[in-house]
Amino acid sequence: MDKQETTAGNTATMEAIVSLCKRRGFIYQSSELYGGLNGFWDYGPLGCELKRNVRDSWWRTMVRCREDVEGLDATIIMHPDIWKASGHADGFADPMVDCKVCRRRFRADQLCEELGLALERTETGFALPEGVRCAHCGANALTEPRAFNLMFKTFVGPIEEERAATYLRPETAQAIFVQFKNILDTTRQSVPFGVAQMGKSFRNEINPRNFTFRSREFEQMELEYFIRPDEAVELLCGSVAELTPETDLSEPREDWGWEVWHKYWVEQRKIWYQDVGLPAESLVEYWQPRDELAHYARACVDIQYAFPFGVQELEGIAARGAFDLTQHQIHSGKSQEVFDEPLKLAAAKLDDAARDAFRERTVAAWTAQGRDPEAARAFVNHLFEGKYIPHVVEPSAGVDRLALALICNAYCEEKIVDDKGKEDTRTVMRFHPAIAPIKVAVLPLVRNKPELVACAREIFTGLQRRWNCFWDASGAIGRRYRRQDEAGTPFCVTVDFQTLEDGTVTVRDRDTMQQERLTPADLKERLTELIDG
Amino acid sequence: MDKQETTAGNTATMEAIVSLCKRRGFIYQSSELYGGLNGFWDYGPLGCELKRNVRDSWWRTMVRCREDVEGLDATIIMHPDIWKASGHADGFADPMVDCKVCRRRFRADQLCEELGLALERTETGFALPEGVRCAHCGANALTEPRAFNLMFKTFVGPIEEERAATYLRPETAQAIFVQFKNILDTTRQSVPFGVAQMGKSFRNEINPRNFTFRSREFEQMELEYFIRPDEAVELLCGSVAELTPETDLSEPREDWGWEVWHKYWVEQRKIWYQDVGLPAESLVEYWQPRDELAHYARACVDIQYAFPFGVQELEGIAARGAFDLTQHQIHSGKSQEVFDEPLKLAAAKLDDAARDAFRERTVAAWTAQGRDPEAARAFVNHLFEGKYIPHVVEPSAGVDRLALALICNAYCEEKIVDDKGKEDTRTVMRFHPAIAPIKVAVLPLVRNKPELVACAREIFTGLQRRWNCFWDASGAIGRRYRRQDEAGTPFCVTVDFQTLEDGTVTVRDRDTMQQERLTPADLKERLTELIDG
Repeated sequence: MDKQETTAGNTATMEAIVSLCKRRGFIYQSSELYGGLNGFWDYGPLGCELKRNVRDSWWRTMVRCREDVEGLDATIIMHPDIWKASGHADGFADPMVDCKVCRRRFRADQLCEELGLALERTETGFALPEGVRCAHCGANALTEPRAFNLMFKTFVGPIEEERAATYLRPETAQAIFVQFKNILDTTRQSVPFGVAQMGKSFRNEINPRNFTFRSREFEQMELEYFIRPDEAVELLCGSVAELTPETDLSEPREDWGWEVWHKYWVEQRKIWYQDVGLPAESLVEYWQPRDELAHYARACVDIQYAFPFGVQELEGIAARGAFDLTQHQIHSGKSQEVFDEPLKLAAAKLDDAARDAFRERTVAAWTAQGRDPEAARAFVNHLFEGKYIPHVVEPSAGVDRLALALICNAYCEEKIVDDKGKEDTRTVMRFHPAIAPIKVAVLPLVRNKPELVACAREIFTGLQRRWNCFWDASGAIGRRYRRQDEAGTPFCVTVDFQTLEDGTVTVRDRDTMQQERLTPADLKERLTELIDG
Repeated sequence: MDKQETTAGNTATMEAIVSLCKRRGFIYQSSELYGGLNGFWDYGPLGCELKRNVRDSWWRTMVRCREDVEGLDATIIMHPDIWKASGHADGFADPMVDCKVCRRRFRADQLCEELGLALERTETGFALPEGVRCAHCGANALTEPRAFNLMFKTFVGPIEEERAATYLRPETAQAIFVQFKNILDTTRQSVPFGVAQMGKSFRNEINPRNFTFRSREFEQMELEYFIRPDEAVELLCGSVAELTPETDLSEPREDWGWEVWHKYWVEQRKIWYQDVGLPAESLVEYWQPRDELAHYARACVDIQYAFPFGVQELEGIAARGAFDLTQHQIHSGKSQEVFDEPLKLAAAKLDDAARDAFRERTVAAWTAQGRDPEAARAFVNHLFEGKYIPHVVEPSAGVDRLALALICNAYCEEKIVDDKGKEDTRTVMRFHPAIAPIKVAVLPLVRNKPELVACAREIFTGLQRRWNCFWDASGAIGRRYRRQDEAGTPFCVTVDFQTLEDGTVTVRDRDTMQQERLTPADLKERLTELIDG
């Protein structure tokens, strides 16, 4: 048995991680044969299984195991008016500068940030602060920053004219808003409920960087969870539950307003990140201060992870009010209101005085926020009829970012000492069994003993029906274990000479390198317990 | 118990099918809120589960349960040179005509076909035969056909210049060829082996039609299965297995050449279509005649299905020789040859006379096919060193087409007569349990008896961990069954008053409408048997 000594903390460099990703077939550069394409990455055999496991776990948790969430799988190319309504056509832009000397191009905000400076906002756009120079050649010859829209444009139909121009979606969320009414009409859901979607999104980043973290083609997992406006909750329940440190977030309640719902989703998402193997202490919960928030957002929490290149966002959980559906109602000219029967019944029970008091309270509250009192009155009158545009909480995660975090978190170099006192280093990917690309490797100890190999094959075939398994019959057993360690395979089942005598096999644990002997009957049960939990 | 009478054969109209798809949330028009986008479709809650099941089944069968196939998940946007090498940049075009009167646009070949005519080929392109008129206004005023490239173009990076132009992939296959060497180098595979990929592809069709069948954004499931050239098989095994009606295709053998491998994959794929629920008699195997084949193809079989709008292709299985990897070798300047040690050893065992004879035979065979004798000699010399560019068999299927075939195949209107002799029609989606969006619905007979509801919830929670389940507590039980029939849910578990006495529940079979009573212990076992087979 080998002894092991793990290096304390996760000190892996990105260089080592990128190298392993290529060497073991997790991630390749897209189009590498033709010199690559900046900001595009392909997932190889191990990488695509890892991503599949991440997606499956999210879908199971967010859709299949929740009665209040429906799935959607919409197209990447959508009607261009959607991006006008969402604000992406006009506002989804980064400030870009060029160096007039070396002709390189940079994101102005990143260039400033790297110098500890901040890009200045002007009335018409942006301005560079004093002292910002070209990051490549050092010349003091940068153009003024100008807005660059990040959406990839293309043309639908045979004519390349502006009328036919549209975009690859820069996020999966908008399709959910656009199909909100169809989903409401064709399922038996009522507010509160959510719609979830996973899929590719595209952003024409000026400077893709940090390996797969900021790339131009990436995959998202987004939920839009539609809730009643707080005023509707108040009408229905008499008051809106206050969010306190003691609020029980385990089961949704009817008197939750946006604040409690938002906090609920932050907690749900943190639990899930731990379920797929990120330790609680590796996650940072960053509450965006009020001045960082988008104008329509009421709150936004980033769940961040400490990558080797810095603490960066895995997921944003935003309370977006009724902004998105309202925009689509305005731009499409079609009502996005829902009819909420319990709300109408609750309102009908109030007498005129109570209704007037409620209306006045709401108008006063809206006015205090600088909002239009007439709009407040119209809103309340609709509420009394049981009608409103739902508000939304949006947990929005990146598949590639999470896959990279899982790879960084798993990567480990360990000093080990074998029986004979010889020192060695092993690289081991400590993936959680639930997301490990291969769950079990089956290894016949020798390959020249047919009955031993046949016995191993039988075990392999049985396990393969259930899990992604790997068969490896060649090479010294120690080398075979190391190969599986690098792939992150949590368990190796070895068939040896004793198997031929009493039927038992050994199961080696990747992390402890401990082995236990099990009968074939116990094997499946033990693996089920270890892998499926 | 209802009596049933199924209409013989599948006579459902597309209209009825499209209507159900929208009504029950299988498929919506993309961007419907903004008037839709021609050729783009979104999958709603039931549709996206159906597609997930199709994809999962394909991946399990083609990748996870095969040791000789690896997965890949590459980007949609790739280096533009890839499409030059593949021939798509120049050749991937449809002939298009415009009506000068009504200004409508058509695919010239389809226009001819609908009139029972054939588009004529000229030296520079195409010409319309006599008598073809505008299908919309009838005017005899069509332009000459001209080629229209079907790839969607976009620009990577901040400048819209030709240098930065690239395309959305029109097929997933090319990424497999481009990453072939990386996958070979980072896995332990050797020829024969395959690489599989699923994902979105895009074709800017001139006339999208037949619901989701021909759309502009669609999903493919493609395998490239790399094999030895026949000459290598001959060197290694002495001869190449002949394909006869008696050839045993159950287990791959070393002496298989491209013909047997091709036939093997046709059979494998037909088995799979039956596994997901398409009856053998609904599938048509169409062998493309020699003059229909692409110039590099040796054989191509289409697996077709009889849609209400005609017999159309679900999958093409093509033997493509070494065409694709050779093109990428030429365009990238990087060798795409593999090294095959057993082949080298076999060649080394031959004496000079045998090698000369083999060389002469190969040169003669190539020359007889009109190919360059010098190229034949170089090829043989590389073979003797164990080197060659692998040949490929490509089973290429469409997810959306199959989903549509499964929906058409499942759709059924049935006349039933209830206990009181009342006639009614039920619509039932007879999906195979393996691909049904919802596997089990759990229904408490009444909702006002808390202990009955609690008992049903407990059963529901237990089943939900395993399968996609649906909870429905409201409405008459008959109406609830009908709702599940329309969704294609194969089994309904009903908790009734007897459950409270003896713990047993009823399981209703969607197709026969028969019910059986089971104990909770038997329930899970019975459902496992029925759903997971």
